[in-house]
Amino acid sequence: MGRVWVRNMLDVVADLGRQYLERSSKISRVEAAAERCRELMSVHGEASGTALAREVVALYREMDESERFAFLEFLANEYAPDPVKVAKAAEAYLARRDQDSYLALASAVDSPRQELLRRLNMASGGTAAIVKMREALLGALEAKPHLRALEADLKHLLTSWFNRGFLQFERMDWRTPAVILEKLFEYEAVHEIRGWDDLRRRLAEDRRCFAFFHPALPDEPLIFVEVALTRGMADKIAPLLEAPPNGREAEPANTAVFYSINSCQDGLAGISFGDLLIKQVVDALSSELPRIRTFCTLSPIPGFRSWLDRTLAESPPETLSPEDRALFKDPRWAESDIVRRKLQKPLAQLAARYLVQEKRNGRPIDAVARFHLGNGAAVERINWAADLTAKGIKQSAGMMVNYLYDVGDIVENHEAFVREGKIATSAAVRSLLPKNGG
Amino acid sequence: MGRVWVRNMLDVVADLGRQYLERSSKISRVEAAAERCRELMSVHGEASGTALAREVVALYREMDESERFAFLEFLANEYAPDPVKVAKAAEAYLARRDQDSYLALASAVDSPRQELLRRLNMASGGTAAIVKMREALLGALEAKPHLRALEADLKHLLTSWFNRGFLQFERMDWRTPAVILEKLFEYEAVHEIRGWDDLRRRLAEDRRCFAFFHPALPDEPLIFVEVALTRGMADKIAPLLEAPPNGREAEPANTAVFYSINSCQDGLAGISFGDLLIKQVVDALSSELPRIRTFCTLSPIPGFRSWLDRTLAESPPETLSPEDRALFKDPRWAESDIVRRKLQKPLAQLAARYLVQEKRNGRPIDAVARFHLGNGAAVERINWAADLTAKGIKQSAGMMVNYLYDVGDIVENHEAFVREGKIATSAAVRSLLPKNGG
Amino acid sequence: MGRVWVRNMLDVVADLGRQYLERSSKISRVEAAAERCRELMSVHGEASGTALAREVVALYREMDESERFAFLEFLANEYAPDPVKVAKAAEAYLARRDQDSYLALASAVDSPRQELLRRLNMASGGTAAIVKMREALLGALEAKPHLRALEADLKHLLTSWFNRGFLQFERMDWRTPAVILEKLFEYEAVHEIRGWDDLRRRLAEDRRCFAFFHPALPDEPLIFVEVALTRGMADKIAPLLEAPPNGREAEPANTAVFYSINSCQDGLAGISFGDLLIKQVVDALSSELPRIRTFCTLSPIPGFRSWLDRTLAESPPETLSPEDRALFKDPRWAESDIVRRKLQKPLAQLAARYLVQEKRNGRPIDAVARFHLGNGAAVERINWAADLTAKGIKQSAGMMVNYLYDVGDIVENHEAFVREGKIATSAAVRSLLPKNGG
Amino acid sequence: MGRVWVRNMLDVVADLGRQYLERSSKISRVEAAAERCRELMSVHGEASGTALAREVVALYREMDESERFAFLEFLANEYAPDPVKVAKAAEAYLARRDQDSYLALASAVDSPRQELLRRLNMASGGTAAIVKMREALLGALEAKPHLRALEADLKHLLTSWFNRGFLQFERMDWRTPAVILEKLFEYEAVHEIRGWDDLRRRLAEDRRCFAFFHPALPDEPLIFVEVALTRGMADKIAPLLEAPPNGREAEPANTAVFYSINSCQDGLAGISFGDLLIKQVVDALSSELPRIRTFCTLSPIPGFRSWLDRTLAESPPETLSPEDRALFKDPRWAESDIVRRKLQKPLAQLAARYLVQEKRNGRPIDAVARFHLGNGAAVERINWAADLTAKGIKQSAGMMVNYLYDVGDIVENHEAFVREGKIATSAAVRSLLPKNGG
Repeated sequence: MGRVWVRNMLDVVADLGRQYLERSSKISRVEAAAERCRELMSVHGEASGTALAREVVALYREMDESERFAFLEFLANEYAPDPVKVAKAAEAYLARRDQDSYLALASAVDSPRQELLRRLNMASGGTAAIVKMREALLGALEAKPHLRALEADLKHLLTSWFNRGFLQFERMDWRTPAVILEKLFEYEAVHEIRGWDDLRRRLAEDRRCFAFFHPALPDEPLIFVEVALTRGMADKIAPLLEAPPNGREAEPANTAVFYSINSCQDGLAGISFGDLLIKQVVDALSSELPRIRTFCTLSPIPGFRSWLDRTLAESPPETLSPEDRALFKDPRWAESDIVRRKLQKPLAQLAARYLVQEKRNGRPIDAVARFHLGNGAAVERINWAADLTAKGIKQSAGMMVNYLYDVGDIVENHEAFVREGKIATSAAVRSLLPKNGG
Repeated sequence: MGRVWVRNMLDVVADLGRQYLERSSKISRVEAAAERCRELMSVHGEASGTALAREVVALYREMDESERFAFLEFLANEYAPDPVKVAKAAEAYLARRDQDSYLALASAVDSPRQELLRRLNMASGGTAAIVKMREALLGALEAKPHLRALEADLKHLLTSWFNRGFLQFERMDWRTPAVILEKLFEYEAVHEIRGWDDLRRRLAEDRRCFAFFHPALPDEPLIFVEVALTRGMADKIAPLLEAPPNGREAEPANTAVFYSINSCQDGLAGISFGDLLIKQVVDALSSELPRIRTFCTLSPIPGFRSWLDRTLAESPPETLSPEDRALFKDPRWAESDIVRRKLQKPLAQLAARYLVQEKRNGRPIDAVARFHLGNGAAVERINWAADLTAKGIKQSAGMMVNYLYDVGDIVENHEAFVREGKIATSAAVRSLLPKNGG
Repeated sequence: MGRVWVRNMLDVVADLGRQYLERSSKISRVEAAAERCRELMSVHGEASGTALAREVVALYREMDESERFAFLEFLANEYAPDPVKVAKAAEAYLARRDQDSYLALASAVDSPRQELLRRLNMASGGTAAIVKMREALLGALEAKPHLRALEADLKHLLTSWFNRGFLQFERMDWRTPAVILEKLFEYEAVHEIRGWDDLRRRLAEDRRCFAFFHPALPDEPLIFVEVALTRGMADKIAPLLEAPPNGREAEPANTAVFYSINSCQDGLAGISFGDLLIKQVVDALSSELPRIRTFCTLSPIPGFRSWLDRTLAESPPETLSPEDRALFKDPRWAESDIVRRKLQKPLAQLAARYLVQEKRNGRPIDAVARFHLGNGAAVERINWAADLTAKGIKQSAGMMVNYLYDVGDIVENHEAFVREGKIATSAAVRSLLPKNGG
Repeated sequence: MGRVWVRNMLDVVADLGRQYLERSSKISRVEAAAERCRELMSVHGEASGTALAREVVALYREMDESERFAFLEFLANEYAPDPVKVAKAAEAYLARRDQDSYLALASAVDSPRQELLRRLNMASGGTAAIVKMREALLGALEAKPHLRALEADLKHLLTSWFNRGFLQFERMDWRTPAVILEKLFEYEAVHEIRGWDDLRRRLAEDRRCFAFFHPALPDEPLIFVEVALTRGMADKIAPLLEAPPNGREAEPANTAVFYSINSCQDGLAGISFGDLLIKQVVDALSSELPRIRTFCTLSPIPGFRSWLDRTLAESPPETLSPEDRALFKDPRWAESDIVRRKLQKPLAQLAARYLVQEKRNGRPIDAVARFHLGNGAAVERINWAADLTAKGIKQSAGMMVNYLYDVGDIVENHEAFVREGKIATSAAVRSLLPKNGG
């Protein structure tokens, strides 16, 4: 009944390693992974790199958090650039300042970690593990500043690998494999998906969902945007999430409302794709549905309430009437529909001020505003009573904002924003601001 | 019935640029491409990077050779690292030698060219253009050594992008799209493909062809290997290329003969995949066809004749009989079947010596031998009268060699080869060598 | 900027028809569909068949049940074969009895409905609509026996179209598009799927789900089977549905348990694929997982309780002890674990008798038994307390049965069953039967 | 080393049959296939139908022509409908004339061959074999008229299976697998493809090739059409085949010229798809390239020369001048450019007459004209010196014709043609006809 299997070459070393581990149970996962890394960087490793890389990746996956940091410390220490070599190369460069000494310096500076990480990437799942390593690091840098050089290596590598030219733009719909769709539950952070029925509604005929993927993470969206196709610019979030799909509608949609954008991989923080995704979606929809003329968002104003509370406490705006001030005094003003309605006008003015005039380092203090305005959008409309969920009330007193992506203005808006910090606004929004503001 | 087209955002800038170019026809393609690059690196470029990158790539494609080098000079000059900044960072590092000064040095050393190239890659076809740039550079480095730093940047980037973890292993057969198959005509450099019928025969049931692809070059194999499934190790090339496919064969194949391996992208020279390809093919065939137990090559000995001619002229081996020496004197000895037959034994001995004992820097002087022995193969058998084409006669007096990939020995062979320069040989090959050789 | 749309030819007629319909709102959907059918069978219809077929299919989809039957009556009446022609052809055949008169008779008998249905099938969705028509008919034949000829035409056509040679055998797993997976909720009738988590568990690594599809119904499984890969033959259903997926299991699975088989399309009743599906699954699993040696089911015994109740009432088996009889008297005996446990042995004997000896027309009275025994399986084991859901208690007092598919016996079992009504049984099951039974 | 394979159930019977055959070498392939057919129709066959069907199909493929006809005779004889049953059913129908007797008659008339063929179709390759059977039969019916009933069964089945609703419309281009592309060499019968370079040109950017496929014949086009995208209606064939692809053309194409339509499967003769293919191509191109406004053919006039020769011999047209008559007398008139040029006007008039006025049974005698006019096209333009290949000279003195598919006229043209035999013509073509013609 026996049969001699021609063993997979790539598995031979993996097996040997596994047996070795099982024999000496004293060796920890971290030590085992470290040992595999050393082999991977040796002559031996050249012949069996894939198998060794697989082992390290498998071990890393099984590690708990403390083991993972032990392993990251190992990477940081054992594969750091040699300071003596760097110093010698720096001296030589300073002495000669020519191409050869520059190349030698560049080579000395390039850390061995990068080579190790490139080899780890041979394992299937390697890229995902490396993204996870950076995710862990980013959350710990404050406490462990000595790991910054390791993090810099990871960022350098991931920036290169996740070059926009390698991203795949995909529409997700009800035909998408379940293994990918279920990721959306986890990654949707703006408006929670409350089950498969909710998800199906967001993928119906009058909705769109687009994402970037990378060939090395085939089942993992990197970033995705949810879009509602509507008549006119939506001013409330609930109907977008709840209304049933349109069958044969009286009038076809003329507006695309981006109502949720989510980055999915924390390990890719700072390697941004969001602006490109929005541009590709505008292109894709313009081509598929030429009647769509307006591209806008329906966005939260996540920092509004906390800014408002602070501002009211510290330096209440002089424009506020005594009655309004009194209303704001009630700690539960935002929970009351009646009170909010009474405050409708000052709230709109304050939201406009918050979005357009409140800046830090010349940039809006609201993160969502920074993202869209940096992409070339304009603040088009402030919407009152637009998100009445508990979260919406808490973050922004129920207010939301439409940012407008006007194809003809995007480049100019972007440049004015980046160069001069200038924020594009509609006349309606400007009318909410004090005369000499901006 | 009229209809206003919503223009593709990504095309707007491209169009503006094109119009601009058409107006001022004096601006050359090189200047235009340089201008686009400058925009691509500016604030403006952030908003319209894809369109600008497309323009540069399109312009580069249209350039003739001299324009291309003018553009490469532009890249080398305008986007070189700032020597002042590098020097300052080097000084600071030497003064402090800590993590921060290291990170600052690494950042100063990282050349702006790399960022430019990463942005160019946003264009579809960007990766291909960058590979072509390196191909052009590699052919010109001797004449233009000042471009070495640019070449180093390109190699750094391409090494990162073409990481083995991103390669796609594919079988090519008669179901493969014609647009890919036709590339094989161009890239097959060992045994020329003489038309579609020849190609079809190489892709028939009893043959295999495997390749690595990269997602950014979907129609371009990076490297491919052609395999014949046979009874026993083949000792001649002609039957592999000419015999009709086996229908229902008497006895099933037990041997896989790798008879042609070709790297396809000159711009990826030095970023090697060949060893990994062979290992993956061994795995794939072991799994598909468990009866295949022997994996070997039937390889040319491309440098044998020129080495032999030189050796005979400079220091003829003492083992040669006077008759053999006389035969070798005839300048056309290799063209004559009769003469070669008379020289059969000394030729085999000389080929064994050439492959196993003739080294430079501790490595075999034959490039094909270096490749297979470096992968862990052994010199298994010298085959006389194995390639009687004009090329075969000219390069190796018709001799070929089987390198054996024995799954159980590969790792050990590789290590012995790399560490000690030791070459694995069969008893038969050893018997051709002088007693104390090797 | 204006642009005249070249209208799709295939839509021109559809549009004209729609306008016509909208003008005269008095025309019902049925009349409109009938009118389209007449056109489809006319000269006009040859040039615009696809558009007309689309209209009919769209109208049929919108019809309510009474309209659908009105339309089916129309098909039955207006496109019935001409009785005069049939009679003439029958007379001619009786007079001549040659090939020509036979061909003429066959042609006269072939009903115009078949041609109409063939033309309707040109619409995308046509096949699905025709399957739905038969589903509606099958449910109404008793009340409307005059529609039997129409049903016969539909069955003839569908039998031809759904020929086994056209079926596509597919594995369904968590990579399958959601639009297909969600169908399983609807079609699973044996062990209800209680949500997406339950579904995911049934599609995990140690489970399999295979289905037949047809190219004309790409998102609709025709029949599917759910399989659990286990150590040994499962004797209870709950662990199959509830246990978490095995990660790295101690011992690999050696048994495939088919625990749910469901036909999905009522309109294809009587056009059976189940036996072929099981054979293909056995083949696919044998090839993928050579360690799987046992293929069996864990099946309900759906008619057992009602047969048992009837039998106990009418002619209680003499083998029952007075105690057992007393226990059975309690109308809620099956709900009590204790009582069932006391009745364990007689229940097993009765279940064996029910499955193996109780027949109608020489076939087992249990439908599931008929299916598996007809496919060549054997009654292998009776499992007590195997399905303790309310349904399991109600239908079979919690009993289930393993039918065994032994590759070496299937053909023989099938022939013995079909020819002689002989039922293959294991020794264990035979030991439950009275000595002279069977 | 041994290993017991779990044998594929579906192969078990096939193997047994093969062994049996090998033992008794006296049994011919025909007898073996007949025996397998008998088993396939037996109880035994139900359990192992796929394996038996595979055997029959494999045997049929290996048969030579005489064996094939012996097998077809077997099918015709052994599985003919039972004349006694048919007669009884005919009598019963005549006696009762009700639904039940009709259904019984339909069932008696349905030949057992159809069931056998349906079962044969379970083999992969079954459909292809059945298509080949009909191809063989069609070529032999005249000599073997007793096989007409068998042919009628095959046609009935294939008509059902190759229903237009099951056809897949595909564009073929240089991305199409080579295994499909190479079929075009064989099937192109209008303008021979002279090698892979010629083929590539026909699949370039400014060309299109569309085909219908059927899921059961995945590598076999059923019918395909080659289209050139041009400025204006082409009047010569050579430029279409020879001109290099347009890169960036001055003016974009506004016309689609269908220059070659080929049915590929002789076994599907009489089951027509050509009209539907042309309509789908018009739709696909209208949607992809809205600037294309004119859809026409550039078609041969294959019967023109032979009709012309006959007409000149039998009743030379009175409109011909004495000079023209003299020119026509020279038997090699058509080979001479000079002579043809002199005859340009009468040739155009004669071609117009041939296409528009020469009919048999109310239909044009030219087969290509019948096809396009039957599809709703119009005779738009007669082109002189349009096909100067040897074949073009021989068949039509170098003339070709443009048929115009005007989307707005197709339905009306088709109806007028079918109902009244009326042929749509352009004013230019009408001007070539005698005043009272038509």
